[in-house]
Amino acid sequence: MNIFISPLWTTSYLLAEVTNGEAYTKAVVASLMVTAGTIFLLSVLLGELCVRLSLPTVLGDLATGVIMGGSILSILVFSEVGEQANSTMLQFLEWVTQADPETTLAAYQFQMRAFINESANIGLLTLLFVTGLESDLAELIQVGTQAATVAVTGVVLPLVIGAITLSALFDVPTIPALFAGAALTATSIGITAKVLQDLGRLQSSEGQIILGAAILDDILGIVVLAIALSLVETGEIEITKIISLLISATIFVLVAILLNRYFCPVFTPIVERFKNPAALMLFSLIFLHILALTAIGIGLEALLGAFAAGLVLGGMSIKERLAQLFEPFVYVYTTVFFVTIGARVDLSVLNPFVAENRESLIIAACLITIAVIGKIGAGFVTFTDKPINRLAIGVGMIPRGEVGLVFAGLGAATGVLSESLDVAVIIMVIVTTLIAPFLLRLVFRSSIEKIEESRKVEAIQELAGEKF
Amino acid sequence: MNIFISPLWTTSYLLAEVTNGEAYTKAVVASLMVTAGTIFLLSVLLGELCVRLSLPTVLGDLATGVIMGGSILSILVFSEVGEQANSTMLQFLEWVTQADPETTLAAYQFQMRAFINESANIGLLTLLFVTGLESDLAELIQVGTQAATVAVTGVVLPLVIGAITLSALFDVPTIPALFAGAALTATSIGITAKVLQDLGRLQSSEGQIILGAAILDDILGIVVLAIALSLVETGEIEITKIISLLISATIFVLVAILLNRYFCPVFTPIVERFKNPAALMLFSLIFLHILALTAIGIGLEALLGAFAAGLVLGGMSIKERLAQLFEPFVYVYTTVFFVTIGARVDLSVLNPFVAENRESLIIAACLITIAVIGKIGAGFVTFTDKPINRLAIGVGMIPRGEVGLVFAGLGAATGVLSESLDVAVIIMVIVTTLIAPFLLRLVFRSSIEKIEESRKVEAIQELAGEKF
Repeated sequence: MNIFISPLWTTSYLLAEVTNGEAYTKAVVASLMVTAGTIFLLSVLLGELCVRLSLPTVLGDLATGVIMGGSILSILVFSEVGEQANSTMLQFLEWVTQADPETTLAAYQFQMRAFINESANIGLLTLLFVTGLESDLAELIQVGTQAATVAVTGVVLPLVIGAITLSALFDVPTIPALFAGAALTATSIGITAKVLQDLGRLQSSEGQIILGAAILDDILGIVVLAIALSLVETGEIEITKIISLLISATIFVLVAILLNRYFCPVFTPIVERFKNPAALMLFSLIFLHILALTAIGIGLEALLGAFAAGLVLGGMSIKERLAQLFEPFVYVYTTVFFVTIGARVDLSVLNPFVAENRESLIIAACLITIAVIGKIGAGFVTFTDKPINRLAIGVGMIPRGEVGLVFAGLGAATGVLSESLDVAVIIMVIVTTLIAPFLLRLVFRSSIEKIEESRKVEAIQELAGEKF
Repeated sequence: MNIFISPLWTTSYLLAEVTNGEAYTKAVVASLMVTAGTIFLLSVLLGELCVRLSLPTVLGDLATGVIMGGSILSILVFSEVGEQANSTMLQFLEWVTQADPETTLAAYQFQMRAFINESANIGLLTLLFVTGLESDLAELIQVGTQAATVAVTGVVLPLVIGAITLSALFDVPTIPALFAGAALTATSIGITAKVLQDLGRLQSSEGQIILGAAILDDILGIVVLAIALSLVETGEIEITKIISLLISATIFVLVAILLNRYFCPVFTPIVERFKNPAALMLFSLIFLHILALTAIGIGLEALLGAFAAGLVLGGMSIKERLAQLFEPFVYVYTTVFFVTIGARVDLSVLNPFVAENRESLIIAACLITIAVIGKIGAGFVTFTDKPINRLAIGVGMIPRGEVGLVFAGLGAATGVLSESLDVAVIIMVIVTTLIAPFLLRLVFRSSIEKIEESRKVEAIQELAGEKF
């Protein structure tokens, strides 16, 4: 049996050790082809729909997951759910590979564990690296204090209100409550930036503060995530441990910011001197590996290392080229990551006619409310004496998007979030992403109208002054 | 324990089921970081050296593998070799993760099986897809018959002479002898194209025939590989089976060539109409998946499907953009694939003072001779009546490169090639790659000198004619 003859992402070597059967290998390969092919086909079509509707493509990936998951097609079924995979698909696999039903099923289950989870891992790390890469620290420093007050308030308010509400009203234990609260912190800037651009308000003071605060939000959100995960691992909340994690994570990120400013101007010309076309990509991966190793070494998470690596390399003058190199990884693996999050959603939890479901719908409604109020509140503490549309700033921070979904994905995978709480977090992400564009147009239009109105009044007064 | 918190390519989900220990997960992650980081660092530095010396970077990858393998550093040790991994590295891992020695060693062995082999698989498939993508069929058709005679002779001669020599002189069993003979078939065009460009002879008749024949060579070589692997799988040689494999593989490739001409002009505008930035990448992967599934369904290998997918999509007018999207995958995964081939080489086999080694050195010398003679012979059957440098065509086809290494890698992995035969194939690839540029300059320079000389003679005669 040959071990290399297998498609993208197969782990036939491993399974060769398990069964040593040619039919099994072929069934795994075929199984990968069918699941991955369907993921890519659906996500590209639904993503196209989102692009046309001016929505982020991540919603298309989530929808792909929901459709392929146990609720509808049952092509992407995680074994912990215990549901049966689509029998038509299994029969198709049997027909192609001419393997018997037991072999086909075993092959399908193996590739779900190996391929799908593997790819989702790569997708998560790539996502965090690219998020770090695109965090424009120079821009952040420009809007400094104003963005900082908005960001910190926008992280603390939803986290604290969320955790207390879940714990007090719904009897959620402390760690899940903190984890779900933490899922409310990070802002997704993509959709807001797009709407602001459409309105021609991206360069306004409000737009700049929103962008700066969102970058800082991501940093704070991922630090919160790293700490929350460490708490989940040990399962206990020691105040000294939280403080030491907070300190080491903060130092880690601060060092990354320093490296962004002082290491990159040295590193860029070294990399550019290489004529090997693979140099930029491989050096970046080496750097990612070193930071992940360092993060593990000081008791933090590898994903914080990936994010920090992106943060540092964002200081390179050739970061556009680097982002382009990582794009294909995002297209393939981050898609799989978001699809798996969707696939874990059990749609039946949303049926309001089942009594037990009402609680998770109520929790979702609560989370949405807290998510909106928390960020609008943050907008109002903007530290400035200039006239500024504080409501618009708050509204611009409402969409949660990718990092919120990372919390949902990790929450489900680690089992820290119960099924209903996990679905509630995902609903919160989807709803905040969907409502933000409308609200944003609303508050900016009213402010534009106000400004135009006051200009009209001034013009009339001027006119009147001239006449009389 | 959290399952997503792991670096690029980890399979912590799988191992979580095996051990469920946090220290183990961290050790796997750290182990990946160290091995992958070292692979990338060494390969980028040695690749740079190759670029500066005008050699293909694949030699740098091979050297990286040899250095990291059991012969020198022992960082990349495959368990079947049974050697011990580098103890300094293991101690470093223990220090970083604070895991005990047994856990660290188990984690190291697991990630070698899961990560390294997994990545090598992806690298192989990507390599074949990109090889297909870059096969310019239009160019091939232009030089049609001439290239075809050269290519077919250049495949048949080394295969037959190689297999017979190995079988008759060295008592190699039939299937390994055929497999090693097949490793002598495919031409690597990269280095020849570069030398021809330097000499300004790429557009000459010789240059065009070499390029055309090399493309066809790849196609024939990969068909031969698919057939050879099927023979290895069943372990027996039935003439009816060989014929049926040959027919189905030929039809498969012919259909791919037809699709290249008639499907792509329809497919390109459809893909271009999509506004989703991920569309091109994902549609190509879907297509790769469909062809791989088809290949499996008709009893062929998934790798032939990947190659055929590349062959078809090479007909797209936007194939440059597609090649760019797959470049990062080549940088990362194909590097790992070639490094693993190098890592399986046991340098001690090369020591001529050990009596048993002499045979493998003699085999290597034989293979090199057959490789050179086979292609030069093919050059002399060039089907044309125009004056042409037949020796130059043959010499241009000498370097074996990537596809030869694919044979070596699969030969070692499936166990069909004995260790000494495998090393002999790798030595053959390295030597033919190294000598080709020198020989090529030699034959082209002598032909340039001859042409210049005859021009001089003509000029003198003209001058003489004018005078008298």
